[in-house]
Amino acid sequence: MKRLRALLVAICAGTMLFIMVDAKAARPSLILTAEGVEAIRKSRQARQTYPLFEAAFEDAKARVERSIAEGVLVPTPVDPGGGYTHERHKENYKVIHDAGILFQLLGDKRYLRHATDMLLAYAEIYEDLPLHPVQKRQSPGKLFWQNLNESVWLVHVVQGFDAIADALSDKDRAIIEDHLLRPVADFLSLQNPETFQKIHNHGTWAAAGVGMTGYALHDPSLVERAVLGLTGDGTSGFLAQLDQLFSPDGYYTEGPYYQRYALMPFVLFAQAIDHNEPERKIFEHRNGVLLKAIDATIQQSYAGKFFPINDAIKEKGLDTQELVYAVAVAFSRTGRNDLLSIADYQGKTVLTGDGLTVARAVSEGAGQSFAFRTMMLRDGPDGDQGALAILRMGDGPLAQTIVAKNTSQGMGHGHFDKLSYILYDNGREILTDYGAARFLNVPSKDGGRYLLENQSWAKQTIAHNTLVVNESSQFGGDWKRAQKYWPTVRYFEAGERLNVVSASLENAYPDTVIERTVVQLDHPAFAAPLLIDVMSASSQEKATFDLPFYFDGQIVDFSGALQANTESRKPLGQAHGYQHLWVEATGQPTNGLLRFSWLNARRFYTLHAVAPEKTKPVFVRTGANDPDFNLRDQQGLILRSNGRKAVRFLSVIEPHGIYNPAAEFTAGSDSQIARIDHVFEAGADLIKIEMKTGEIIRLAISNDPDSEKTHRILSAGHEWAWRGFVTVLEEE
Amino acid sequence: MKRLRALLVAICAGTMLFIMVDAKAARPSLILTAEGVEAIRKSRQARQTYPLFEAAFEDAKARVERSIAEGVLVPTPVDPGGGYTHERHKENYKVIHDAGILFQLLGDKRYLRHATDMLLAYAEIYEDLPLHPVQKRQSPGKLFWQNLNESVWLVHVVQGFDAIADALSDKDRAIIEDHLLRPVADFLSLQNPETFQKIHNHGTWAAAGVGMTGYALHDPSLVERAVLGLTGDGTSGFLAQLDQLFSPDGYYTEGPYYQRYALMPFVLFAQAIDHNEPERKIFEHRNGVLLKAIDATIQQSYAGKFFPINDAIKEKGLDTQELVYAVAVAFSRTGRNDLLSIADYQGKTVLTGDGLTVARAVSEGAGQSFAFRTMMLRDGPDGDQGALAILRMGDGPLAQTIVAKNTSQGMGHGHFDKLSYILYDNGREILTDYGAARFLNVPSKDGGRYLLENQSWAKQTIAHNTLVVNESSQFGGDWKRAQKYWPTVRYFEAGERLNVVSASLENAYPDTVIERTVVQLDHPAFAAPLLIDVMSASSQEKATFDLPFYFDGQIVDFSGALQANTESRKPLGQAHGYQHLWVEATGQPTNGLLRFSWLNARRFYTLHAVAPEKTKPVFVRTGANDPDFNLRDQQGLILRSNGRKAVRFLSVIEPHGIYNPAAEFTAGSDSQIARIDHVFEAGADLIKIEMKTGEIIRLAISNDPDSEKTHRILSAGHEWAWRGFVTVLEEE
Repeated sequence: MKRLRALLVAICAGTMLFIMVDAKAARPSLILTAEGVEAIRKSRQARQTYPLFEAAFEDAKARVERSIAEGVLVPTPVDPGGGYTHERHKENYKVIHDAGILFQLLGDKRYLRHATDMLLAYAEIYEDLPLHPVQKRQSPGKLFWQNLNESVWLVHVVQGFDAIADALSDKDRAIIEDHLLRPVADFLSLQNPETFQKIHNHGTWAAAGVGMTGYALHDPSLVERAVLGLTGDGTSGFLAQLDQLFSPDGYYTEGPYYQRYALMPFVLFAQAIDHNEPERKIFEHRNGVLLKAIDATIQQSYAGKFFPINDAIKEKGLDTQELVYAVAVAFSRTGRNDLLSIADYQGKTVLTGDGLTVARAVSEGAGQSFAFRTMMLRDGPDGDQGALAILRMGDGPLAQTIVAKNTSQGMGHGHFDKLSYILYDNGREILTDYGAARFLNVPSKDGGRYLLENQSWAKQTIAHNTLVVNESSQFGGDWKRAQKYWPTVRYFEAGERLNVVSASLENAYPDTVIERTVVQLDHPAFAAPLLIDVMSASSQEKATFDLPFYFDGQIVDFSGALQANTESRKPLGQAHGYQHLWVEATGQPTNGLLRFSWLNARRFYTLHAVAPEKTKPVFVRTGANDPDFNLRDQQGLILRSNGRKAVRFLSVIEPHGIYNPAAEFTAGSDSQIARIDHVFEAGADLIKIEMKTGEIIRLAISNDPDSEKTHRILSAGHEWAWRGFVTVLEEE
Repeated sequence: MKRLRALLVAICAGTMLFIMVDAKAARPSLILTAEGVEAIRKSRQARQTYPLFEAAFEDAKARVERSIAEGVLVPTPVDPGGGYTHERHKENYKVIHDAGILFQLLGDKRYLRHATDMLLAYAEIYEDLPLHPVQKRQSPGKLFWQNLNESVWLVHVVQGFDAIADALSDKDRAIIEDHLLRPVADFLSLQNPETFQKIHNHGTWAAAGVGMTGYALHDPSLVERAVLGLTGDGTSGFLAQLDQLFSPDGYYTEGPYYQRYALMPFVLFAQAIDHNEPERKIFEHRNGVLLKAIDATIQQSYAGKFFPINDAIKEKGLDTQELVYAVAVAFSRTGRNDLLSIADYQGKTVLTGDGLTVARAVSEGAGQSFAFRTMMLRDGPDGDQGALAILRMGDGPLAQTIVAKNTSQGMGHGHFDKLSYILYDNGREILTDYGAARFLNVPSKDGGRYLLENQSWAKQTIAHNTLVVNESSQFGGDWKRAQKYWPTVRYFEAGERLNVVSASLENAYPDTVIERTVVQLDHPAFAAPLLIDVMSASSQEKATFDLPFYFDGQIVDFSGALQANTESRKPLGQAHGYQHLWVEATGQPTNGLLRFSWLNARRFYTLHAVAPEKTKPVFVRTGANDPDFNLRDQQGLILRSNGRKAVRFLSVIEPHGIYNPAAEFTAGSDSQIARIDHVFEAGADLIKIEMKTGEIIRLAISNDPDSEKTHRILSAGHEWAWRGFVTVLEEE
């Protein structure tokens, strides 16, 4: 089936690779293949239609018919993201892509004609285009303000071309190849070496565009450039991207928002490679890291939305087009039925053989609920740069989920939020992560770019549920320095009734060590799992320690007296994000237990905190120093301890009750916990939770990963003994 | 079928009424009837099951089985709303109700036994109970803190009794009748004459409970008391409630939130009357006002939620149990198929013959989309106390909807918000009404009662989208005075492309007349209808006029320079709700056009305002002087004009564009309007809207309801002539 025409040998990452380029494979051969076309045609002839596939089919038809009605619109590029020419060129690449595929599937020459006209119109102008007049800081494009968009354009357009190439006249095909596709590929590689050689999603998109063009044009040199980089030695290019950007667990160092985006060129180019050169076994590369990455992307979501860690638009979720491709590919390669529930949620699939397979399986009812699980996703190319811990407890996709961010910085889009966590419960985000300060593609909001407040607020440590020392961000807010350090995961355990992750962080602050242990405990005395959190820090000097909890919902109760700033408000500080927080109210310095309850939609939550002596509770709200109304509204409670060298905060978060105003029904709006005691002795924590019913739950944390050792702690005259990092103590 | 045993003659509201009480009708005969039982049994025997009915059936079974497992729990009443004993007694009335009905439908004696045991347990304690220890300000109950709950309890419990009465031993029946039902009925009427005689939903509930007890106990005197009041002359009682609480259009003076609640005793007691004494033709009373009221309740909703005017919990919507009853009754009496879409939305029905009819019709696919329409609901017993105008434009249930509140005060739960409006668009509330400050049944929020902030903020004029004069509320915030006045609706017109309502208000402020004309215009130049709003006021003295727009969403653009209070915030004022508003930013005094855009979910909105010279824009946010965090977060823009005797504000609200961050697609985020001019001359408004495309739209408002007169206005040398209150002018 595949005929060999060229054989290149190269050394890449210490491995001998045989690069075999079939210069004249049967087209189409990128994502849609000749076999896929046949399967789809047969299925349609047999009138076997499947809703997910039909949805994609109808979308494509509507898009192309609309474009045919409008005529060929290839405007001179002038607008930034969100503007007319930007959106037009985005739409055009989809039109060319879809028209090519529809021509393959239906054989309708109107689609061939339209795709050809579009491509010729671009070929007419492309080479003479100057750089885009509105240039992003780096790496401008010609059709778009940044060449990233141009790579995405090429990845789509070349698929449309691949689908019609054999039906083109030699003249038209030569014009399109020589005056459009090859120039774009050269522009994105030879003329933009910095982007092309970057180990970064921009580089992956460029490699995918260039490499897929190589296959479509039967040009092995373009494929080689894409796979092994400009210098041909594998120090850049697709394989280097695949080796360095994903951890062995398939975690992408920038986090799920960019993982979703980065996944698409990886998946598409890998598909194209596999269709043209299956001998490369690209999907088996690094123990199948690409399929692991697809699974990891889905795992990093709750209620359909991605965990919004690092720079992330919170609306993004599993139904994005990138994941539609990924799920189709993963299902057809693994046959994992639980992927079908994701496809079903997406409501559509892709117009390829894989898409048909998925759509058919969903229609036949083969789907199962996706296997969301408790897991640790190690970060770093070698998996030794911290980890994202996902703790889940309960049944189904909306099981309570804790996301502990013990990863590395994640480059320029990373936030200074090590050891922070997000709590999801009952289908909603309860303790929240702000995500990015950005309104995607809204021109009046700085052209849809990241806003200044993304730097001044969203990235800063105080914007997250983690400890801040002396009102400054981790690593002084310098991401290049932050990039060199990461937390050490001391312990991780996933159990049926108890999950735990513990990590420590050095170097974020001078001479300071921070440790956090997060336990998720399912106990029969409670309707929902408890989150138990021990956050400690020790420093050489006396310091101010701020531990924030950003909650979503309405404050309904607080245990102490509050001094509310009812007549005037001031910001909490001057820099590192503090300037954006209004101080709404301050509590009395506490000794002992502090209790705070809020209502989120239909459930109540109570935070019980045993904080260091004289800790001051401060209620804050975003919005200070925000003259352009760029921030969203977000409330938080900060526990502030002043003038100590070491602190140890115990926080227990208890979901309880039900609030149903529609049915006028409320129950369990009070916490069931009467009292919590916390003893820390000889390195171990003993936590005693006393229920209002009198029942007592004792949790012991040895802070020692050695599972063989026996630990002892003396409390109120009783000696407790146990083994393991954390355990629920039972009375003898 | 119905045998006559007693014949009473009474005079009520000038009409001769024959009150015929059948002292021994075949039980059950209240809501569930013997015929209904037979139909349901037959349907189940034939294995004809319908999801809506089965949902109700399974709910009831689960509830009663749970209660049987728990045993009879009739605690001594101690807790206020939301507390244990309160919720327990609420649950119990549902258990007794459901157990009785299940006994009828299934013949299972376990249900008979449980209902009997429950009733006997209550009979054991009821007479000796003192008034509830936690008494609401007025009208305490014995089982509950207010006797309103006790009426609701009786309405349910007597239905359960009615269903089992004929199966009880004579002894048990006598105990329950003499030591429970009759004492409760007497307590709610004879011993609480003030509530019982009040023309108010509390009175309706009491009348329904007492009257239904009369039918169940075959006691005509109780029925008479309920129908004609304590004095038997019709000055109070059910008929008086029906005559005075609803307007001829079926509008309930307190607004939809209480209409929904009040509807239930009306519907239930009317059903019971009709089942026992069809001769009364109660559903035909006042031209079928009860069925009109059911329709009006549904009309007063958007996206399933009721318009939150006056004291209202915003979560309440069409799926509340009250509406489930109402829809079942209305469908079985009218056969209106569009009611079935509401039943379908509710997802359940009631366990009666009517319920079966609805469930069957839904299952057979007979449903049609509910006929939401543009309409005016006149307020007041005679329909002459203002009106609620509902303007709708577009297709389907999510068509753009404007709710203009030109009604009377609506008694103690009314807000001082005459001439305000709410704008719904694209499925969401865009210009909002705060609703009530209350967390229903949350003990830590003042026991779930209306909070102090309901008075200090939610009711005040400044909390609404209407004009405030001199920083004080309409009628000085005195509802009893406000109760005497209402707006005059000058004009109302519903058209295919243009809806309009215009009203004027006197007496709200000394020597001040306020007028507002709201136009909803569907014009081909725009993707969605425009809201065009002319608000004017004239006063004897120079005054400060504040016109607020409370918007939901993120500010994305503003036409002028803003002075943001970035480092410190102060409240806008000291009283009448102003003390709760933080001043976020102030704009420069404007001359000419002011433009403000915000983003709500997936659509952009731009307010174009042509305000009086030197009007100052002020951005505000709730939260000042709110020490207990009782307020929700709400942003607004206030247009403030100072030092004039007369003002005229033109506001045009333009929905535009689409924002889709999941698909990374944004379009039309800029307004399409380049400029707006407003000429007011000889009593007429000429509004010129100039599009960015150059197209011009001219709207003329004559402010004259006389449709025969020709109006003329001179503008820029051109004389325009037209007929009618409002018109789109076409160039000759």
